[in-house]
Amino acid sequence: MPAPEPSPPQPSPPAAASPSGAFVLAEAAARARDIRAAFGGGGSPAPSLPAPPPADVPATDVPATDSPPADVPAADVPAADSPPADVPAAEVPPPGAALGRILRGPSGLGTVGLHLARCESASAKVVPVKPVEPPMAPAEGTPVPGLYHHPVPEPDPVRVEEVSRRIKAWALDEVDLYPEDWEDQFDGFSVGRYMVACHPDAPTVDHLMLATRLMVAENAVDDCYCEDHGGSPIGLGGRLLLAHTALDPLHTTKEYQPRWAESLHSDAPRRAYRSAMEYFVQAASASQSDRYRHDMARLHLGYLAEAAWAQTDHVPEVWEYLAMRQFNNFRPCPTITDTVGGYELPADLHATSAMQRVIALAGNATTIVNDLYSYTKELASPGHHLNLPVVIADREGISDREAYLKSVEVHNDLMHDFEAAAADLAAACPVPSVQRFLRGVAAWVDGNHYWHRTNTYRYSLPDFW
Amino acid sequence: MPAPEPSPPQPSPPAAASPSGAFVLAEAAARARDIRAAFGGGGSPAPSLPAPPPADVPATDVPATDSPPADVPAADVPAADSPPADVPAAEVPPPGAALGRILRGPSGLGTVGLHLARCESASAKVVPVKPVEPPMAPAEGTPVPGLYHHPVPEPDPVRVEEVSRRIKAWALDEVDLYPEDWEDQFDGFSVGRYMVACHPDAPTVDHLMLATRLMVAENAVDDCYCEDHGGSPIGLGGRLLLAHTALDPLHTTKEYQPRWAESLHSDAPRRAYRSAMEYFVQAASASQSDRYRHDMARLHLGYLAEAAWAQTDHVPEVWEYLAMRQFNNFRPCPTITDTVGGYELPADLHATSAMQRVIALAGNATTIVNDLYSYTKELASPGHHLNLPVVIADREGISDREAYLKSVEVHNDLMHDFEAAAADLAAACPVPSVQRFLRGVAAWVDGNHYWHRTNTYRYSLPDFW
Repeated sequence: MPAPEPSPPQPSPPAAASPSGAFVLAEAAARARDIRAAFGGGGSPAPSLPAPPPADVPATDVPATDSPPADVPAADVPAADSPPADVPAAEVPPPGAALGRILRGPSGLGTVGLHLARCESASAKVVPVKPVEPPMAPAEGTPVPGLYHHPVPEPDPVRVEEVSRRIKAWALDEVDLYPEDWEDQFDGFSVGRYMVACHPDAPTVDHLMLATRLMVAENAVDDCYCEDHGGSPIGLGGRLLLAHTALDPLHTTKEYQPRWAESLHSDAPRRAYRSAMEYFVQAASASQSDRYRHDMARLHLGYLAEAAWAQTDHVPEVWEYLAMRQFNNFRPCPTITDTVGGYELPADLHATSAMQRVIALAGNATTIVNDLYSYTKELASPGHHLNLPVVIADREGISDREAYLKSVEVHNDLMHDFEAAAADLAAACPVPSVQRFLRGVAAWVDGNHYWHRTNTYRYSLPDFW
Repeated sequence: MPAPEPSPPQPSPPAAASPSGAFVLAEAAARARDIRAAFGGGGSPAPSLPAPPPADVPATDVPATDSPPADVPAADVPAADSPPADVPAAEVPPPGAALGRILRGPSGLGTVGLHLARCESASAKVVPVKPVEPPMAPAEGTPVPGLYHHPVPEPDPVRVEEVSRRIKAWALDEVDLYPEDWEDQFDGFSVGRYMVACHPDAPTVDHLMLATRLMVAENAVDDCYCEDHGGSPIGLGGRLLLAHTALDPLHTTKEYQPRWAESLHSDAPRRAYRSAMEYFVQAASASQSDRYRHDMARLHLGYLAEAAWAQTDHVPEVWEYLAMRQFNNFRPCPTITDTVGGYELPADLHATSAMQRVIALAGNATTIVNDLYSYTKELASPGHHLNLPVVIADREGISDREAYLKSVEVHNDLMHDFEAAAADLAAACPVPSVQRFLRGVAAWVDGNHYWHRTNTYRYSLPDFW
């Protein structure tokens, strides 16, 4: 039985950070500065978010004073009030110190503005809330033994409550997302705690809501079209494409355009996608919205590959499963970290192959975390649900326990590769938006593990140790 | 019976070109200039393409002197030798003069460098070639009566021959694309003529080859996975996703990565995607490659929606069909016009909602052209092949002839909307790369119609007039 492994040695930047690569990154850095200058950003790491759409907190439900101000400058907030997002919890050894420094951000004089998590209590504090999730208990759950991960501070309970309250209001009042008898499942999803844990640098609750709505919408599509709540692989390609047009709109003739627009209100998944995307587009740049659409197209391709295999009772080879899972993946969630953080990673820096590799590895690690924590839940579901341990056991002819433990190693390798690639990129490209984006992705990875570990409503571990 | 319609009145830019929209576009223009400056481009509209990969013209097949130089500066070329790409052919009235000016580019002193088509004969002229397509005859075929379109000059026969020769060498020697008995179909596809017609501003044959390889690869995937040559909707989601990883690579662990890399050589569609993308990535910026991947993810989603409906014998509503067809669409072809032209439309300008609308409308018009010209071919194919006339006839309860004629009108509306949106954007955003990109998309639309009209090997019109 493998013991929880100690922190690995810190990888040093490999020779692959070649002179030409460094040149490309330096050029891109110059371009990024120029882009900021052109927009009057002046190099500020966190330009303010445009005012949120008025529907965010319907006036009829919530007195105006309940709504946190959309723009609380970090400078107004006493840093000492916030949870120390950059200090790992004590029960697990911290990762390699050098890597920790890079991924958790700069320290010292003048860097407070980069740690936007330090302002998170402030905007939330002015909001008196009534609890809608069960009162915040200390985090429960046990980490998968041997899983390489970084613990996170408990997410700010005041923010969690406020996000939970607002997301339920949105789900019920704005998009009519689910019937009453699904309320327990909605609460059990604990999406408020999830998103607050994953976005410690969101300047305001309004920013957090951008991520929370999209996460709920993505789950609604998955549940209603693909899985738990009436989903099916049959005809899925048509349903997903029509839902995708709620993110990536149709442009057609005057006769047919209105029928498409009406269709976006015709079921819960499309209502949720349409509304969540409308809020997102108002807050994001055009390139950030384009990036999100691309990642969602990838996600939908992943769903359709999984559905095709389910329909034909095909168990893929392990590498094929891993390829599918790079698409059917959390990727759309960490890649909006800059929009949720109120800044922008420029499109040309996002597109570099080095950044694409970091994002892919991070997404793959988070997704295998899901396979590991949801293993017993999926075994208990109807049908033969593919996940990494199941595919390894089938394709490599080993026991369920051995396959599960091997899957933990696959996850750990992906995490180490992600951290090494992120450290290399951070060293090669000292641009504030790149550094902050890399920290944001790492924070998402850690927050995602926290949520899986603590979501004992949904998940329990197998008895393999 | 509708007669070929005269040119419509030129739409004037609507009030929607608002001050805030103009501000965004002006800001983006400034950013575009900054990006050029950061890269040392100095505002040149056509930076030179990096040297093409050495495999482009294998030394063993073609003496080095046969290969056109990758970089022939436009200034070295007598403009009078080239076909007049900006003069519509005589048999059809030109479109509105103002629009024509915008879409066909600037004129007057100092604008020669923007008309790269004028250098096309030059680089090709140094290449003695032996014909591989039938000797160039005058273009055949009849336009669909009533179809709003713009004729194009006959594509340069020397370029057509050279592209045709090189693409066949690539297909046979580099990616082992097809068995010998498919040679007639490969030749009948006339992809050389297609791509030369669609990219009149490509500086060299090397640039044209970027588009030609991708077009052939896209058709190989469609044919082998989806349609004519052993394709099927069953299990398509898995096949397409694995092929998509040839464009958007897998990042996984050391144990599984090599098996994925081997898989890219395991069938013709993946060999073709992998190789064509390798060439493209070397010539394109990271953002241009990202754009292409996104458009290909859209295409694959479109294939999967169509397949889902085929599998369930579902005839969609007309708007649903049009939504599917916005994804199962030529879009990936016009949107590489800047890479093929040897310049870059900056990512932030590509992502604007105005540009996205122009691209979507252009793609939709070109795709309905395909539905109209391939109508009789698809009726003769096995199964119930969906296309716009078939769906309109079924869903709106009208005759095949009426449905076909209504589809012509749908196409014409899309073309008019495309041209109006492009004219508005060109007026609002006087950035050279935007102007040239819009001209490039318009040239692709026109070249695509030319190819469909003249491809009498594949297409014939129904007897509805």
